[in-house]
Amino acid sequence: MKYCFGIDIGGTTVKMGLFETSGTLTDKWEIPTKTQNFGEAILPDIAASVTEKLNELHIEKTAVKGIGVGIPAPVDSEGVVKNTVNLGWGYKEVSKELKELTGLDTIAGNDATVAALGEMWLGGGHGQKNVVLATLGTGVGGGIIIDGKPLIGTNGAAGEIGHICMNIHETEPCGCGNYGCLEQYASATGIARLARRRLQKNDDPSSLRDMEISAKAVFDALKAGDAVAEEIIEEFGSYLGRGMATVAAVCDPSVIVIGGGVSKAGEILLSYVEKYFQKAAFFAHKGTTFALAELGNDAGICGAAKMIIDKEIK
Amino acid sequence: MKYCFGIDIGGTTVKMGLFETSGTLTDKWEIPTKTQNFGEAILPDIAASVTEKLNELHIEKTAVKGIGVGIPAPVDSEGVVKNTVNLGWGYKEVSKELKELTGLDTIAGNDATVAALGEMWLGGGHGQKNVVLATLGTGVGGGIIIDGKPLIGTNGAAGEIGHICMNIHETEPCGCGNYGCLEQYASATGIARLARRRLQKNDDPSSLRDMEISAKAVFDALKAGDAVAEEIIEEFGSYLGRGMATVAAVCDPSVIVIGGGVSKAGEILLSYVEKYFQKAAFFAHKGTTFALAELGNDAGICGAAKMIIDKEIK
Repeated sequence: MKYCFGIDIGGTTVKMGLFETSGTLTDKWEIPTKTQNFGEAILPDIAASVTEKLNELHIEKTAVKGIGVGIPAPVDSEGVVKNTVNLGWGYKEVSKELKELTGLDTIAGNDATVAALGEMWLGGGHGQKNVVLATLGTGVGGGIIIDGKPLIGTNGAAGEIGHICMNIHETEPCGCGNYGCLEQYASATGIARLARRRLQKNDDPSSLRDMEISAKAVFDALKAGDAVAEEIIEEFGSYLGRGMATVAAVCDPSVIVIGGGVSKAGEILLSYVEKYFQKAAFFAHKGTTFALAELGNDAGICGAAKMIIDKEIK
Repeated sequence: MKYCFGIDIGGTTVKMGLFETSGTLTDKWEIPTKTQNFGEAILPDIAASVTEKLNELHIEKTAVKGIGVGIPAPVDSEGVVKNTVNLGWGYKEVSKELKELTGLDTIAGNDATVAALGEMWLGGGHGQKNVVLATLGTGVGGGIIIDGKPLIGTNGAAGEIGHICMNIHETEPCGCGNYGCLEQYASATGIARLARRRLQKNDDPSSLRDMEISAKAVFDALKAGDAVAEEIIEEFGSYLGRGMATVAAVCDPSVIVIGGGVSKAGEILLSYVEKYFQKAAFFAHKGTTFALAELGNDAGICGAAKMIIDKEIK
C-alpha cells in the first residue's frame, strides 16, 4: 500500500501529513482542535479531513495502509487514553474510534514518544535504534525508542523524564505537585527560573538585568560572553546532563536527541549537557552521543506515519 | 521440542537447569566456574555438562530447543560480552561459541535481566508483562522486562539502576567511581554504611551498638522495635523508593520486584520503600505495585530457560 497518514493532535491545532510508505511527505496541512464538549468533534473532524484529502487527490482507501496518531496524553498499547489535560477527553478508545470513523487501520501513541520515533526515522536519531528524545519546551517531555520500537509501558506513561526528581531540597512545587522535577530546571520556564534565582543571589553585573528573562535571553547572553548567563547554563547543563545519565542507566540508549524550543539555542547547549552527562554516567553508558532534533514541528506527523508503516500485516 | 537448558554463570559456580519447555524444572545442578586463563574453560565445561546430562537422561539433542545463559556482565543483543569483572573474559561471542560447542541454539543475556525474566515468568512478577527487578545484594542490580521481553539497550547495559545518582552531595565514592549511586544506600553494604553513619551521629541508645553491623542486623533491630534502626530503614526506604520512582518515570512498570539477600527481611521492607515511592512517583505511576522476589537463586536459570522458550523459530 502506497500511502499512510501521520497525525499529531495538539491543544489548538491538529497537524496532518499524507506520506508515501517509502517515507516521502506528500502533503501536510492543519485543522483546528475543537476541544469544546469534551473534545467530541476532534476525531470526526480528523476523519472528515482524511476523507477529503483522499478525494481531492483521487486516492483509493485500498491504497492507504492506515493512520498513525500522536496524542498529548499517556496512551496505552491498545490505543486507549484515560484522561487528557488539554483535549477535553476522558476515557477514549482512540485507535478503535478513528478506525471506525475512517475504515482505516489506526495506531495511537503518546505525542512525545511518537516524536521520538520520528526523530529516529528521519531526524537527529537517524540510523539508530535506541533513541531518547528530550523535548525542552514549557515543560520537559520525553519519548523512548528501544530496538526501533516505542517504549510504551503499563500506563502509556514511559518516558516521563521531565518528572524525575533531581533535587529533594527544592522548595517550589512542580506543576505535577512534586518537588525538584527535572522539568523545573531544564524546560524553558525552568531556565528562566534558574536565571531569576541567580540574578537575585547577588549584584554581579549581567546584561540579563536589563531585559525580560527567558531561556532564549539567557542563551543569547551566554553567546555574547555574559559570565552570569554562563553560570545559569552550567546549572541547567548540570541538571539535564545528570538527568540524562539517569535515563541512560535505565534504558541504555545510543543517542539522546534534544528537541523543543530550547534546543534552538543550538550546539552550544549540547556541550553543557554532555559535560555533566560524562561526569555522571555509568561507565557502560559513556559512549552515548547527543544530537539536536532536526524535524521541528514535523517530528510528530513523521513518527505517527512511521508507527503505521512499521506495523506488520498479519 | 520438549526440553531446554537454563544456565546462570556466577563468579564461583555455574548453576544449570534442565527444563521442559512447558515450564517444569526437571533437574538442576552446579559446576565450578574456572576463571583461570581468562576463563577459557567456562564455556567448554558448560558444553560438556550439557552433553553429559543429555546422555545420562537419554535425551536426544533434537528434543532440545536450546540453551539460555545469564552472564554477570553487559551482554548485547547479539550475545556478545565486551568485558567481565569476575569471569576472566574479555571480548567474547558467548551465544555463538556455546552454539558451536553444543550444536544447540543459544541466547545469552545479562544475569540481572535474565533473573527479572525469571521472576516475571514464575516468581514475584508472575502474570505481569512490565517488570523491574531490583536485586539488593552486595551491590544493587537491576533487570527490566518490557512487554514480556528483556530490555537490553545499546550496550546490554539497560537496567543499571544501582548507579542512578541519588545524592550529589555524597562524599564517599561508589565502587563505580561516581558519588551518590543508589547502590551506596540500598545494597546490603549500603544499609550497613547508613547504619554506621547514623550511630556515629549521636549517642542515642540502640541495640545495634552492641553487635556487628549488617543489613540483617538493622532489619532485625527494626523488627524488635529499635528506634534508631527504624530511622536507618526510613533513610534506606527513602533512597530506594525515590530511586524506583525514577525508574518508573522512565519505563512505567506494572510491578517492581525486590530481590537479593536484603529482600529476606520480608514484607516490612516493602512498606518503607512503597511509602517513599508513593511520595515521589509521577501521578501516572502511582499504581505500580511492589512484590518480593520468590525464586531466590533459581531466578537466573528460570529466566535463562524462558529466553530460549520464548524464541520464535523461523
